[in-house]
Parts: sequence; C-alpha cells; structure tokens
Amino acid sequence: MLRFFEKDPYAPIQYLYGVEKVLYKGKSDFQEILIIENPHFGKMLILDGVVQITEKDEFFYHEMLVHLVMHAHPHPKNIIVIGGGDGGTVREVLKHDSVEKIYFVEIDEKVITVSKEFFPSVAGGIHDSRVEIKCMDGAEFVKGRNGDIDVIIVDSTDIVGFAKSLFTIEFFKSVKDALTDEGMFVTLSESLHFHKDIVIAVQEEMRLIFPIVDLYTASLSTYAGNWWTFSVASKKHDLRQMRRDFTIDTKYYSDEIHQQAFLPPKMYEKLLQRKLPW
Amino acid sequence: MLRFFEKDPYAPIQYLYGVEKVLYKGKSDFQEILIIENPHFGKMLILDGVVQITEKDEFFYHEMLVHLVMHAHPHPKNIIVIGGGDGGTVREVLKHDSVEKIYFVEIDEKVITVSKEFFPSVAGGIHDSRVEIKCMDGAEFVKGRNGDIDVIIVDSTDIVGFAKSLFTIEFFKSVKDALTDEGMFVTLSESLHFHKDIVIAVQEEMRLIFPIVDLYTASLSTYAGNWWTFSVASKKHDLRQMRRDFTIDTKYYSDEIHQQAFLPPKMYEKLLQRKLPW
Repeated sequence: MLRFFEKDPYAPIQYLYGVEKVLYKGKSDFQEILIIENPHFGKMLILDGVVQITEKDEFFYHEMLVHLVMHAHPHPKNIIVIGGGDGGTVREVLKHDSVEKIYFVEIDEKVITVSKEFFPSVAGGIHDSRVEIKCMDGAEFVKGRNGDIDVIIVDSTDIVGFAKSLFTIEFFKSVKDALTDEGMFVTLSESLHFHKDIVIAVQEEMRLIFPIVDLYTASLSTYAGNWWTFSVASKKHDLRQMRRDFTIDTKYYSDEIHQQAFLPPKMYEKLLQRKLPW
Repeated sequence: MLRFFEKDPYAPIQYLYGVEKVLYKGKSDFQEILIIENPHFGKMLILDGVVQITEKDEFFYHEMLVHLVMHAHPHPKNIIVIGGGDGGTVREVLKHDSVEKIYFVEIDEKVITVSKEFFPSVAGGIHDSRVEIKCMDGAEFVKGRNGDIDVIIVDSTDIVGFAKSLFTIEFFKSVKDALTDEGMFVTLSESLHFHKDIVIAVQEEMRLIFPIVDLYTASLSTYAGNWWTFSVASKKHDLRQMRRDFTIDTKYYSDEIHQQAFLPPKMYEKLLQRKLPW
C-alpha cells in the first residue's frame, strides 16, 4: 500500500498513514490540497502536508470546537466561523435552533469546493439559507465590526503561515469589539503535550483582552500530540456553566463532557504560572 | 537523522521518530529490545518494535496506572506489580508510605537489567528493601494465592503475544482470589480511539468476575491512539472516591485528575452497551 507521511513542522512525531487511493491532488492560491482514502479513517483532507480532518473522527474536533461556547452562551444568534472550509464547524453550529446567521469566512475557496465534492457529510450544511460565505481573510472580516456578534469561532490550520493573523493581540481586540456584551470566542490552541508554550502564549494574549478566559481539551487521534486544547474567552459569563439545555444530536460532546473537558482549576493555574512539569 | 518506524500491528497510524543515537540493541528470550535517543523524548525503550516508555513522558502513564487505585484503596500494604520491567510502576507505588511489600513480577529479566542501566530515574526504586523481584509469568505467580494482596497492577505490553495470559477470565479469577476483601486491580486496556472493541472485551470479562468495574483514561502522546484506557476492578469499594489524602509528589496525577479521569457515567454506560458511535 502507498503511504502518506504527515509533514508537521511542529511535532516531534511524524504520523504515517496507509493510502488506498489518492482522490484529489491540487494547489490553491494558498496551499497544497490532498485528499486520500485510508482503510481506517476513510477520506482524509490534507493541507500543506498536514491532516485536517478524516471522515471517521472529524466529529470529535468539530463538536468540541463548537458546542461548549454554544451551550455556555444564553442565546447565540449571530455567529462568525473563520476557517473550517470543510464545513464541519458550520454543520455543528447549524444544530442550534437559536442561530439566525452564520458568516462563514474561509480564505481559501478551493477548500470549500473540494470539501463539497469529497466530504458531503461534512460540508452538507454550507448552503443552508442562514449561512453567508465570505472568501477572505478572517482577521480582515472581523476588523471594525461593532458589537453585533454573539459567538466567534476560529477553525484555522496550525498557527503558522497565513493562519498567524488569527493569533495576534490585534485580532483578539477586533474579536472583542465585534462581540455583544455577552459574546464568546473560541479558537484551537494546539497540543498540551507538544505545544505547551503555544498554549500559554495564546492564553496570555487572550487574557490581556478578555475578562474571562479558559481552556478545555479533547483527545484527537489524528492531530499530533493528540491532547488538543481549545482556548475560549468571554466578555461576561463564565464558560464552564451551561446556560442552555443539551438537546442536540452529537456523537461525543454532551453535558457530561462539557463539565469534564475543562482543565481542572489547580492544573490550569499551574499552566498559567508556567509550572506544569513537562 | 536516522528514523525509527514504530511497528504497531494494532494501530492504523504508524509513528515515526527521529533517532539521534541507538544506545542499545539486543534480544532477550522474549523480545527484541531497542533503546534510542530522540531529540524531544530523550531515551526511549522499544520492545518488539513498539514504544514502551520515553524519558520525557513516562510519568503520565506510570502515575495514572498506579495512583488511582492506590488512593481509592483505604490502606494498600501488599502489592503485586506484573510487568513494567522498566521500574516506573514500582517507583510510583513506593511513593505510598502505607506500602510494606511489592512483589515485582517481570517475565523478562533483561528488560530490568537494561532499564537499570539506561533509565536510572525510572528504575531507581527496584532495589528498595520492600521490593521482591520475581522473574516469571505474572499469571503463574498470581495463581493459587489466597486473599493476602491489597492491590494488583498489570503493566504489560500490548494485549498480544505473551501478554495475552494477563487478559483472560482465568487470570481475572486468580486476581480476585489473590486479593483481600477490600482488594483492587488495575490494568491497561488500550486506546478508546483505536481499540474500542478490546476495551469492551476487557471490561466485559472483568465484569463477569468482579462486583465493581470501572474505566478511566489519560492522553499519552507516544501510545498510538493516545486516548489510553485503564480498566479497574474492586471487590468492595467504588473506585471514583479517594479514601486517602493526596500528599505524594506527582507531575500529572492529582485529586482533581482522579475525579476527572473516569469516563462520565452516561458515556460509560454507552460503551458497555456497545453504543458509542465510533
């Protein structure tokens, strides 16, 4: 069988996948796009050599990125999703009946196009009437907005290359301005095993801007380091408490997982003090 | 740089590690033993092509294998450790002042010998006067014992080859007989991402023998699938409650982690009913 080597410049382990078939190989203005079929994971979307989603386990990531803020917020109506061209994050946001509008801001239109073709179960919600697609830089889209958004979700590639603009103090300021007084923000922040310094850096920047910042994790088998973190911020409400009933259909996220996913208080304190002993 | 491919026959992802130096390569009566130096993980112990421990992150595994049962048990004095020739599990058990005796049963003496030489920070406790080393099959050692052991800990290689005897109903029966009325038992049971059927099989077998069985997890970056499970059984006390103060020195395990590590009740129920949707 053919094999695909992940080329993750920030991981001390490289992952190697069997390839049953190469389904698509192309280049957009921003990145190389590869879609392969793997015997265990099904179809896999790979951008610039790094695995983004697999058919088999994408729901762990998408559910965990979306549903904690969507349940901590009392009434999320207007949402911005930045990145996530595969459509999985939009699919999860659409499960919430309270949602009236999703600005889906993906810099690379080509990712949306191939996802619609090869990952219909992931990208299927993109054409919902509540979704407005904007093919542009997410940081540009958020800049200058004025307090009309309830939840902003960043679903970017790793914090390198063109995704870097989504992890700056300037961007976090624009996010804060774009949010209502009850607004919330969530972004991926890499692995607690392999990228602890990145996790801390993102947390520290967010804490300069937002009054309430927190961190939760999930185990994701196809992201190197696996113990994946999500950094989350809020202008008014704490994030550990659910403010809406858990009634949507999910595979992994639940009210139980909402409680258990956050870093325990003493461990979180140690992280912020740079005292975690690894 | 040289590279080491892990050859894990039960994982859909193969892991690839840089090798700064091969420190030891040999063959015992039971397995091939390889010790390499990796720039991120430090020294790594590899048995039959599968990574067992790394200097950098072994504490996650060893602490999580040992300290939950040792805190759920009211007064653990007499302990059996099966496998774990590197000594990390024995090191963690020795942190508990209540311990009077550890039977350290490792089938492969050679693993103990090389661990003492290359992993002194892991194997350092092996010569403590409370430790009695038995180089023999763990299932044989436990068979026929009569209710004098407080805690039995299985720290084996993957559930293939000669480790299989440690995952049979017969073995679990011997374990139950060997334990006191308050006795507890813990064993690794593979990844909830990659080996869900194995996790369920181990749980079902244990539930045939023990009145109380439970499951907890930890994220371990060097074990494929990463979302690692520990199956745990008890004759009398539940395992989620700590019965002793948390006073020992650890890097990851804590009273907070003890509470958070167990599978949430509804998810655990779904696992047992084979209804987890992945």
